Amino acid sequence: MLKNWLFWRIILGMGAPVVIVGTVALDTIETPHGHRSRVLGGSAVYAGIAARLFTDVRLSGIVGRDFPHEHKQFLMDREIDISGVEVADGDTFHWHGAYLNDLNSADTIQTDLNVLTQFNPRFPDHYQSDHPILFLANIDPVIQLKVIEAIPSASLIVMDTMNFWITHHREALLGTLKRVDVLVINDAEIRLLTGKSNLFLAIEAVLTMGPKRVIVKKGEHGSVSFDGTHYFLLPACPLTEVVDPTGAGDTFAGALVGMLAIQTSRDEMAFRRAMVVGTVLSAMTVQGFSVERLKQANRDDVESQVARFVSQCQVSV
Amino acid sequence: MLKNWLFWRIILGMGAPVVIVGTVALDTIETPHGHRSRVLGGSAVYAGIAARLFTDVRLSGIVGRDFPHEHKQFLMDREIDISGVEVADGDTFHWHGAYLNDLNSADTIQTDLNVLTQFNPRFPDHYQSDHPILFLANIDPVIQLKVIEAIPSASLIVMDTMNFWITHHREALLGTLKRVDVLVINDAEIRLLTGKSNLFLAIEAVLTMGPKRVIVKKGEHGSVSFDGTHYFLLPACPLTEVVDPTGAGDTFAGALVGMLAIQTSRDEMAFRRAMVVGTVLSAMTVQGFSVERLKQANRDDVESQVARFVSQCQVSV
Repeated sequence: MLKNWLFWRIILGMGAPVVIVGTVALDTIETPHGHRSRVLGGSAVYAGIAARLFTDVRLSGIVGRDFPHEHKQFLMDREIDISGVEVADGDTFHWHGAYLNDLNSADTIQTDLNVLTQFNPRFPDHYQSDHPILFLANIDPVIQLKVIEAIPSASLIVMDTMNFWITHHREALLGTLKRVDVLVINDAEIRLLTGKSNLFLAIEAVLTMGPKRVIVKKGEHGSVSFDGTHYFLLPACPLTEVVDPTGAGDTFAGALVGMLAIQTSRDEMAFRRAMVVGTVLSAMTVQGFSVERLKQANRDDVESQVARFVSQCQVSV
Repeated sequence: MLKNWLFWRIILGMGAPVVIVGTVALDTIETPHGHRSRVLGGSAVYAGIAARLFTDVRLSGIVGRDFPHEHKQFLMDREIDISGVEVADGDTFHWHGAYLNDLNSADTIQTDLNVLTQFNPRFPDHYQSDHPILFLANIDPVIQLKVIEAIPSASLIVMDTMNFWITHHREALLGTLKRVDVLVINDAEIRLLTGKSNLFLAIEAVLTMGPKRVIVKKGEHGSVSFDGTHYFLLPACPLTEVVDPTGAGDTFAGALVGMLAIQTSRDEMAFRRAMVVGTVLSAMTVQGFSVERLKQANRDDVESQVARFVSQCQVSV
């Protein structure tokens, strides 16, 4: 169960804001549970919805003229600030993926970058205010670095990335990495980034590249955090059904920054609490297509799911 | 850190005994760290050494005339009761395995059953006394059933198995399964046994087959326990080096039954404590070839490693 003081801070809106920069997308998804065409997706969307359960969220991204009004309205109804989401001539970024053999990894069938190729984040002035936490979701590391420079007031910088940037834009990625506080990355990506097959050697290697903390997402196997001193080992929630894994990692990261934003400290325990809540919310995301299940999550839900999950992890030796 | 009362019970020898039936082997092992020929191995050996850190251990197995005296002496020096280990004409069971591509799964290069084909456990009368916990390590389910019938005084029956029995001796295995309290099994095996690819559906299916609790070993991804009411989710210890994974699962199970034997209750928390200690000891096993590292483990070691591991898993939300 979340601590009382935490809930009061959420309810009273006492958290720092978070600025989330990433993709706003239309996804076409195939899983053993079915097929969905051009549904709401994108790293900034999943992360934004998750973070918004805890604090103020300011999105930055780009969409095309085809982006459905209902999605825009949904984000506005959530009071997610989309004044930093540009509407450009052209079509919205579209990803078509399938999870047919293995629910742990997607096969990309098609990527239509569309307006994403023109993305050059410009922020309304108020995005700078109140020392926001900055979450750089998976986008071009050159753009991530521009964002870091554009928001010098950020009190914490958290970054995600993916295989494509690690392989093809390695130098830019290493440059950006020097400027971030926390790297959130999956297990395959951290091995690729560091060239170490042992996960814990890979984690230690990242700490020589700039970040002061690494959080590794291992899908159904949970997550691991290391800050150079403390390891934190966290399982995933037991799920008897996974409908659509898309957005699980972005949900985790969004909940993480949202939970960090409302806590008064950023010590080890603050990160652990944030990872627990991230785990619970990402389990909700994968139980529906797109954001269908995630958008039903409310604070009572989170409260009861967190209580159950914590009791399932409790070791009292 | 282990509770004080637990340590006093260990030191004063207040636990129930455990009877362990399984293989006593000579192993030839190849890993990226090197090669060892005809070293001490076998499920009963790993489990017995681990359990002996906590309580009295009575082994049952069979060896050939070639079994080195030094290994026999080592077990006797540990005050592991080997009066139920038969010495038969012929050679000791020999397994030759390699972990060259993946430290999580062994490739069997050769299996010489040798005297194991004659194994028909006979127990000295004293093996029956004091309501032992019975651990049936991975052997023929027909023999496992005979052992269950031969030790009616057992207060708890814990069983392991493997792919070969699941595939080729399924009916016998299902018969034995009806008689056991706890099934300890790895993630690939439980999927094979139940035909369910979702781990948690597989776990629920096993509870309809006889066992009242299932404990799934997931190697580097930890372990899961379910008793029909409580899930327990436990990570593995973070290891930067794995020298030889052989015996990790047997060590885990041996520590589990040893820790259950010294506790006054067999409730959920007793199993959780036992799994934590099993995790720590199996991490020691894989850090050396054969039993080289495991045999160095003492209670102080276990105490400090458990304290560290528990602190790495602690969630206080």
